[in-house]
This record gives sequence, C-alpha cells and structure tokens, in this order.
Amino acid sequence: MVTETSAATPFATTLPGRYYYDPALYQREQERIFGRMWVCVGRADAIPRPGDYLTVDLAGESVIVVRGHDGAINAFLNVCRHRGARLCTERCGHVTGAIQCRYHAWSYGLDGRLLGAPNIRDMDGFDRAAYGLIPVACALWGGLVWLNLADDPAPLAAQIDAAILQRFGELETVERYRLDELAVGHTIVYDLACNWKLVVENFMECYHCAITHPELSHFVPSFKAGLAYQQGVGARFSDGVDSLTVSGKTNRPPLPGLLPQDLRTYYGFVLLPNVFVNLIPDHVVIHTLWPEGPTRTRIVCDWLFDPAAMAQPDFDPMDAVAFFDLVNRQDWEVCELCQQNMASRAYQDGGLYVPLEAHIRAFNDFVLARLEE
Amino acid sequence: MVTETSAATPFATTLPGRYYYDPALYQREQERIFGRMWVCVGRADAIPRPGDYLTVDLAGESVIVVRGHDGAINAFLNVCRHRGARLCTERCGHVTGAIQCRYHAWSYGLDGRLLGAPNIRDMDGFDRAAYGLIPVACALWGGLVWLNLADDPAPLAAQIDAAILQRFGELETVERYRLDELAVGHTIVYDLACNWKLVVENFMECYHCAITHPELSHFVPSFKAGLAYQQGVGARFSDGVDSLTVSGKTNRPPLPGLLPQDLRTYYGFVLLPNVFVNLIPDHVVIHTLWPEGPTRTRIVCDWLFDPAAMAQPDFDPMDAVAFFDLVNRQDWEVCELCQQNMASRAYQDGGLYVPLEAHIRAFNDFVLARLEE
Amino acid sequence: MVTETSAATPFATTLPGRYYYDPALYQREQERIFGRMWVCVGRADAIPRPGDYLTVDLAGESVIVVRGHDGAINAFLNVCRHRGARLCTERCGHVTGAIQCRYHAWSYGLDGRLLGAPNIRDMDGFDRAAYGLIPVACALWGGLVWLNLADDPAPLAAQIDAAILQRFGELETVERYRLDELAVGHTIVYDLACNWKLVVENFMECYHCAITHPELSHFVPSFKAGLAYQQGVGARFSDGVDSLTVSGKTNRPPLPGLLPQDLRTYYGFVLLPNVFVNLIPDHVVIHTLWPEGPTRTRIVCDWLFDPAAMAQPDFDPMDAVAFFDLVNRQDWEVCELCQQNMASRAYQDGGLYVPLEAHIRAFNDFVLARLEE
Repeated sequence: MVTETSAATPFATTLPGRYYYDPALYQREQERIFGRMWVCVGRADAIPRPGDYLTVDLAGESVIVVRGHDGAINAFLNVCRHRGARLCTERCGHVTGAIQCRYHAWSYGLDGRLLGAPNIRDMDGFDRAAYGLIPVACALWGGLVWLNLADDPAPLAAQIDAAILQRFGELETVERYRLDELAVGHTIVYDLACNWKLVVENFMECYHCAITHPELSHFVPSFKAGLAYQQGVGARFSDGVDSLTVSGKTNRPPLPGLLPQDLRTYYGFVLLPNVFVNLIPDHVVIHTLWPEGPTRTRIVCDWLFDPAAMAQPDFDPMDAVAFFDLVNRQDWEVCELCQQNMASRAYQDGGLYVPLEAHIRAFNDFVLARLEE
Repeated sequence: MVTETSAATPFATTLPGRYYYDPALYQREQERIFGRMWVCVGRADAIPRPGDYLTVDLAGESVIVVRGHDGAINAFLNVCRHRGARLCTERCGHVTGAIQCRYHAWSYGLDGRLLGAPNIRDMDGFDRAAYGLIPVACALWGGLVWLNLADDPAPLAAQIDAAILQRFGELETVERYRLDELAVGHTIVYDLACNWKLVVENFMECYHCAITHPELSHFVPSFKAGLAYQQGVGARFSDGVDSLTVSGKTNRPPLPGLLPQDLRTYYGFVLLPNVFVNLIPDHVVIHTLWPEGPTRTRIVCDWLFDPAAMAQPDFDPMDAVAFFDLVNRQDWEVCELCQQNMASRAYQDGGLYVPLEAHIRAFNDFVLARLEE
Repeated sequence: MVTETSAATPFATTLPGRYYYDPALYQREQERIFGRMWVCVGRADAIPRPGDYLTVDLAGESVIVVRGHDGAINAFLNVCRHRGARLCTERCGHVTGAIQCRYHAWSYGLDGRLLGAPNIRDMDGFDRAAYGLIPVACALWGGLVWLNLADDPAPLAAQIDAAILQRFGELETVERYRLDELAVGHTIVYDLACNWKLVVENFMECYHCAITHPELSHFVPSFKAGLAYQQGVGARFSDGVDSLTVSGKTNRPPLPGLLPQDLRTYYGFVLLPNVFVNLIPDHVVIHTLWPEGPTRTRIVCDWLFDPAAMAQPDFDPMDAVAFFDLVNRQDWEVCELCQQNMASRAYQDGGLYVPLEAHIRAFNDFVLARLEE
C-alpha cells in the first residue's frame, strides 16, 4: 500500500516510481483500465458515410470502427474468425458492402455477420451465425467515439456524467459548448517519451504554469498563482484577452449558446482515462491520450470550431493552434524530464504533492483502485 | 491440451495464438525442434573446394560447415575452445589448411583437431586431443546440407524418407528430379514479420489460392478449387501451360529422367522442420526457412535448374524467378496479416481449419508432440 | 559454484558464459559492484570553476557532479525532490548559483540544500532541510573523480592503494607519474558490443599480444612472449624505442620526477572496477569503462601529458594517440568476437586460462565474491 505522507511533510505522495515504468503494472493498467473502461478513440465525424471505417489499437486489440448502412457506428475486433488474419489494414478507409479477408475471402457485413465463406456449406455442420466478427461496445458522447472492451459495460453516460459532475457540480456548462456540433479545424499528433499518467498529472495542476507556461500565465492570471481545478470555477482571462491565441485576440465570435459567464473564461477537465477537454470561448481543444508502452504515449490534439465560423472566408485556425501547441510542447518537455528519473532510488517511494497539487492524489487513488479490481 | 473442435463447428482448430508469439514457446521450439532434428542449412555446392566454408546460425549456435581435404563436409561449433572467440566471421569464405583464432592463435584442422596452441606444451598436463572443435552432425540429401545438434541423432534418411513416403507413398517420384544434380540459377532472401509455423501452414493448403494467387490458380485449376496435398497426386497445369513461369511457357526442356506423368505437373511437399520443395517439369524451387525470433522468419528461396540447360546461350532463369517470387510475396503478405492478430483475445483458443485444410492439423500435432518431448 | 579446472586440463577456467550476457547477473553486478564500490567517472579538471558540472549515469542513477563555491566537488542524485524531474540535462554545463528545476522552479544550492520552493511556506509543516538533493559520496584520486553510491563507504584511498600495492608492492612508482598534475591532450570514446569483464580480462593478459598487437609487441619484446602483470616489474621497450608512439620516438621529455628505471618502460594496471592506467615515460593513457548493458561497454580513453610539454609550440599528441588507438581497436575486435559465443553450449562452463593468463582468475573470483555479498 502507498503511504500518503512522509515523515518530513504532511503533504500527499505521488505513486511510487515503478508505476511509471514497470511493464507488469503497465500490462495490468491496460487490462483493468483501458480494457474495462469506456475509452475515447476519435471523432465520429471522421467516418461520415456508411462503409467508412477507422482502425484503432486499444489495450492490445485492433478494433474496426465502422459506420453501418443504418448510419449507426459499430465496432468489431479486427480479426477474421477463420485463421485470424487482420482484416482492415489502414488507419481509416472505406469498404463497400462487406469486409472481406484477403487470405481466404471470408466476408462480413458492416453489422459483423459472416456473409460468406468459400467452400463451406452449412450442411457440413458449420454454424455460420457463430462466426460473425466479435463485437466491441461502442457509444458516442460529445461527437467522440468511445469503445469498451468489457463484456457487459455500464452505459457511457454514467462514466462521463460522473466526471463532469465532480468537476463542475452540474452538466450544463459543458453542454453549452455543444461539442458534438463542432468540427475539427486542425490536428497535431505528439509522441512522448513518458508514461501516460505523468501527462494526466501534469494537466491536473497549474503549480507549474508560472515557470513552464509564461505565455499562458500572462493571459490567465490565476494560472500564474498556480490555481487550477477548483470545482465549478473557470479561469478568467486578463484584461484585453479574448481567446487563447497567439495574440489573445480572435476574429471568431463566441461559440453559439454560451452565456456571458463563459466569455473570456477557460474551463479544463479530464475525462478519464484518456481525454482532456479545454473549453475556450471561440474554440475547444481536445487531447486524446494513447498509452503505447510503459514509457511511451501518443497524444492526438484536435482543435474544434463552430462550422459556421469555419465557413467564413477569413477563417484561419492557426492563431489558436500555434498557441496551444506551444503550451503542449512546454508540458511534454517536463513530463519527459520526470520520466527519466522514475527508476531512481530517490523516487522509489514517489515524490510529493504540494497543497496546490493535492487534488491529483485522487487520480492516483483511482489508478490503484482499478489495478486492485 | 488443445481442444480439437469448438462447440460451434466440427472442424479442427489451429494452435492457440500464443504458439505464434510467446518467447518461451519459441525457445522451446528452438531446443526441441531445431536443436534436435536434422535442419537444412543450404546447398552443398556452395562450398565446392576443400577449405571452403559456410557459417550458419542454428538454434542459437553459430556453426562452421567446411569441406575437408578428403572432400567430405564437416560441421563444428564456431567457438574457440580457449576463450570462446568466434572463429569464422564471414557467412562464407575459404581457409587454407587451418582455422586460426584471431585472439591467441589457437589453430584447428579442417577435421576440427587442435593443431597448435602457442606457449602450451603437452608436458604441462594439457590434453590437446580434448580441445578440438566441437563437432556437429552433418549429412547430405538432395544436394542440401543438413545439420543435427543432437548428441546421437538418427540417420538423416530416416527423417527425409518418412516425410516423402507420407506425401507420395513412394520415393521414386522425388528421386526422378535428381535434386543433387541440379544447380542454383537464382536466389532471393525474404525477411518476414511472422512466426515460421504460419508459413508452413500457408504452404500446406490451397484454400487461399483462388483469392491470394490468381495467376497461379489460373495455371493450375485444382488450386482454384483449393485442392492441395493429396497423397501421391500432382497438380496438373491448364491446357497450354508447360511451366510455372510468367508466360506459362519455357524454352527449357523437362529435367532429364522425368516420366510423361511428371510433365505439366506440379508437386509440392514439406520436409520438416524447414524446407519446402516445389517440383516443376523444367526447374525446382526450394524454400529454406530460418526462424529468427518468435515473430521473424528469414526465407532463402533457390531456383534450381539442370546444368545442361544453364549452359545454353539463351538460358534465362528470370521467367521462372519472377513467377514464383510473385507467389511468394502473395503468401508472405497474408502470413504477416495473421501474425498481427495472434495475441488478440479472439485468437487465444486459435482459429479453425475448414475441411480443405484439415490435414494441417497434423503439423500442429507434430509441433505439440515435439514440445512435450 | 564454478569449477576451477576441467577434467582435460589442470588450467583454471573462466567464468561460465552466462556471466557475460545474463541480464539478471548484469543487474546484480550493477548493484553490488558499480553500486557499492568507488567508480571513476571522469577528470576533475573537466569542471574547473564553481558551478561547472558533469552529469553521469552510474548503476542506473543519473548523478550531478558539481564544483561548489568553496572549490570542492560534490555529487548529488540528479532528481528533483518534488516530482522527480531530471534537473541537469546536459552531459556538462555551468549553473550560476543554483540548480533550478524546470517543472515547478524548486531550486537547490551547489551544496544541495533546497533554497526555494514556490508557494510553500515552512509554516505549512514543510521541513525544507529534509528536501535537499540526495548526496552521493565523491572523492578524488589521480586527478580523477570517483563516486560511491553506498550509504557509508570506506575511504577511496583504501580501495585504490590496495590495488596498487597488489600490483607493485609499493605506492611510489605510480606516485612518480603525478597523475593529478597532468592534463588531457586527447580523448576518444569507443562503443563496444561486449560485456565489460571481457575488456578487463583482455587488458590483464598479454598472451594475445603477439597475434593481436604486432606493432606493440615489436616495441615491447616481453609482450611478444606473452608476459604481463608481473608484480612490480615494468615492460622494457626494444632498443631504439623511447615511447609508445607510431614511430617509437617522441619530442616530449620524460614526465618530471621519473627515475631512470622508468624510462623506456611501460607499466599497466587496473583499478577495479573500471579504470586501466598505462604509464609511459612521456605520457599516460587512462581507460574508463562504462558498462551500458550486459553486452555493451562504453570506453572513454584519455591521453594525458605534462602541461609544460603541452605548452610547447611543437606539441602534437597524435603520434601517441594514433598508436594506442590502434592497440585499442585491436583489443576491442577480439573482445567482441568472444562476446558472440558466450551463449554457446560450448562455453556454458566457460573457457580456460593457460598458465600465462592464470592471474586473471583472481578478477573472476573478485566478481563472484562481490555478487555473493
């Protein structure tokens, strides 16, 4: 068990260093967190037409996410039931009518049913219905596709709403940003040399902002003081700052439906296990984390805008992209510096959270609780 | 133990997925299959003169295969008996008279005897005869060199003949092709990202031919129907097809000694653990597999011809090479697609063999039996 | 336990092959040899001014070696006490006054004390004195910096003097070369594909010199006979040879303080675990070994000269550098040839030491004794 405090301080401790590099603990996380929770795998509007598909790697499984003829999105293990061949080999693509294996031509419908297997007749005693693609639970929230590899998962909304209620005390603030009606204006993919939890812990506190993010702290004074994650409270911009862009200005109007209290305000929150949401008056930044090993994390960062604003002839997302890309890279650098010492004897019992970071311990306890399940 | 059938089908199952990626099972295969059976390591005519040598990696050992002064081929561990230095460092080469270590100049004859060790006199109590190179069993079949790392192996012929008898019911068909009198016209080396057993299983069935090999199936109609591996039966070519070349034609006569029943006919067979033989009227294609890790396989493919045909001024092997190279690459692609899903939960109990593939199960049972020995 | 002799010979055996590649044995060596002994990490004159620092990787720890305001050199784990971030990220550099973490701006003095931590007041119950950098024992000998990760190590001199007394029977010979007054004229870093112990064993014997080092043996006749490491005896140069340079000549005078018996003489010795010293009349060559994995070793080779000689307008170190670089590369090649066979069945019980190498066994016994501690 992890001790909450050390002899020299009343402060909470981080997880011991081994939680950030041990392959066995990573494997356990993959099984018990990413293999059992709803995990975000991308934007639903990336596959708008029937037959459009994504393939994603989730907790060791390749999964096909495909829009069916009825317009609904389904997900299946990307494994032919015959000899196990990988079916879809591109990250995204389109199939017309059926998913066919390149090895022996077994073919499956967009609903996963086995449509045909050459040279096998049902009279051979072959129960065709038993050899459809293996389904994976799939649901939508905020325009995002979420998968759950568990056999009988609870509804997605239960997981999402609990996280939002804990952060905001209500659901309305987030709903005002109508995430499912926004569109992607730009995407950057980052490869980090650190454990995914270091990135979550970094996102959850602003004690580092004054030194790591001078530009951001200049625009958001409460960040300079290290304040973040107060329940239900947004972070107000400095006078003259209207958005988190390079200039602090923007030619985009606020997102439709926002209230006056949302203007010149930033809200950030985490949807465990793998999404960060950043609400800004005229755009939204969403980070999706993909653990790729005990000490590797891939992060997909999407900048979302109102489609009406994107249709304007002078629309240019890059003032927003350049700003948060800078903030991102500042964070990734310090996360990687921490990773380098996780195996040090100095960190075998973990480090400590100062009072401004104390709330992060709840994330560590969430991880420990999941690993014990 | 592996269950032979699943609830939903009377068909045989493949090995569970872990047999295709687990490092411990791979190590066990290396010890109990490649470390105890006769394994083909190349063509004897690659080292024609006394002093010519090959070095090969077999089941973790580097082995020198060298032709002696008496013309016979011998094999030894490539390890100096003094401090263990690697002796021969090239894949093939020539030594004159002795194999000398570059570290302290210990020298060994082509028969492995320790010839000299500087500064050591037998009067020191040193038993020179005990420090010759460690021999490895070596024998020839079909112009191929076979090694056996076991201490006291059964004769090579017992292993080879059993395989041929099981496939053909007699030895004469294969003998007619006089493999040891053919010569290499071309060689291609392939590196595959899959376990060696997937390649064997692929070679043993033609259920995939219609979809994976349209060109080959066009030339060999029974392949289009998925037929392969019937005892004692060759696969007949289509009308107008004389050889497996790009055009289906050839300017090479049939190999000397073939019977009318061999013309316009293909015979394929496996010599476990690591050779595929493809008999074609005017040439022979031999695949030699080298497992290079749980999920890596190197394949050396030799195209063999009658030396008399090779001496013709218009001899060109490339019509034959291009055709089987195409077939090879089609197979490697699907083998690699299977490898990608071996660790999926969908394959933890294996896939299944349809009736046209049912004979492959015998290969899986061979592997299981060997691993238990 | 390791058997000292085999049935066929009265000679001593080497360590079994697994000691040269097994990751678990390597880890044990790292803990019990490199984690508990004084280990050389470089030259003290590389950090001449207060605030100059080196970072080194020792037994899995990143260590800062920094010269303080009082001119003394101190060493600390390169780990921020707050969240574990790596503090100094360059191999060498300079800090002015304090070492500051880039994550949350905790800052430490050159003596390791925590100077400041933003937003934390001692009145919070925070004991600032308990959060200084974790010190690592640091001492100097021969102008070299030595670290010891043990909690309460014996003095460095005890370790060094014992090694010199064993080799020379006295301390005066080495003292005459005044290593701490010499300066680096040239440095070459080598990356070897072998275990560090093979390099030590290679350095300790000259049975290989006649074949591996023809140039060196030509200059030092006793090496041609395989003689090395006789207690208290230096190796005399051939007639007409004054130094170990490409020509055997040099325009540099002997180092100040040498006695007539030191001229035209080479002394070599090992300071376990990781230094080789080569005393030559006009210069000194020092090898520092860094194990970088079971089968990887980095070697830093410094050529040291008298600063007075280096100040001469015609000073050129390259005649000396080119010669010993040749000798080095000859050695590294044979060490790597041995590494390649350490996992062979032929070496599972080790090789053997002939009488000219018998003294190396003491090094092997040192390793075994340390691993058992």
